[in-house]
Amino acid sequence: MSDCIFCKIAAKEIPATIVYEDGDVLVFMDIGPIIKGHALVIPKKHYDPVTQTPDDVLAKLHLVAKRIAQAQMNALGADGVNIMQNNGTAAGQEVPHIHIHVIPRFSDDGHHWNWNAKKYDDFDEMAELAGKLRKHL
Amino acid sequence: MSDCIFCKIAAKEIPATIVYEDGDVLVFMDIGPIIKGHALVIPKKHYDPVTQTPDDVLAKLHLVAKRIAQAQMNALGADGVNIMQNNGTAAGQEVPHIHIHVIPRFSDDGHHWNWNAKKYDDFDEMAELAGKLRKHL
Repeated sequence: MSDCIFCKIAAKEIPATIVYEDGDVLVFMDIGPIIKGHALVIPKKHYDPVTQTPDDVLAKLHLVAKRIAQAQMNALGADGVNIMQNNGTAAGQEVPHIHIHVIPRFSDDGHHWNWNAKKYDDFDEMAELAGKLRKHL
Repeated sequence: MSDCIFCKIAAKEIPATIVYEDGDVLVFMDIGPIIKGHALVIPKKHYDPVTQTPDDVLAKLHLVAKRIAQAQMNALGADGVNIMQNNGTAAGQEVPHIHIHVIPRFSDDGHHWNWNAKKYDDFDEMAELAGKLRKHL
């Protein structure tokens, strides 16, 4: 897409610090890292969101993300890794071209996701939502 | 693994509210949802972390996660979806059996990840980390 910044990075029209590249996938450094070493895995072709991304492309993106996670552990000494893929502005997605965040984590890095776990009012409420999901699979 | 709660759920030794099941994959509701409708996608067989999960299993997990995301949009009216997979206690992982969080998001849901983007000291710092990652791929 002509106005997509990640398409422009894939086309080398905008510079990025590249970590990995093959015919279908590009990995580059996020310039606003949650933790330094944070990389983004994207398809060179424009897809968005995950539900519109072909299965073979999605699978390939995640196999590359796995390799990046291993490299963050081996090369940077990461103790853990967050692999996160946000869909929609409601989910915090900023660039509408599917991308997987691969974020190295260290025991002392001081970052905490806002993991604000809620509770269901009762079991029936949870079961009802599960039933709705099952009907739409 | 005998002491793994997700293995016990997969073996039906511990109850869970199941959304989807096939020979290899189980999806059930997270009882502590970030947003109600939050589901977990796991392999029935024990693997952890992502770097120790076989490629075919990892791909299958993410294709199921995609279907759950679509169901959250269609069945629950979600405006967006977070797909998140944490590896290691440093990354916030609580159960050491690979699992993918699929979290429906709504424009007015009030949840905000702590997206505390940092900056590199300079371009060279980022390029040096990228170089280390490239050497370990």
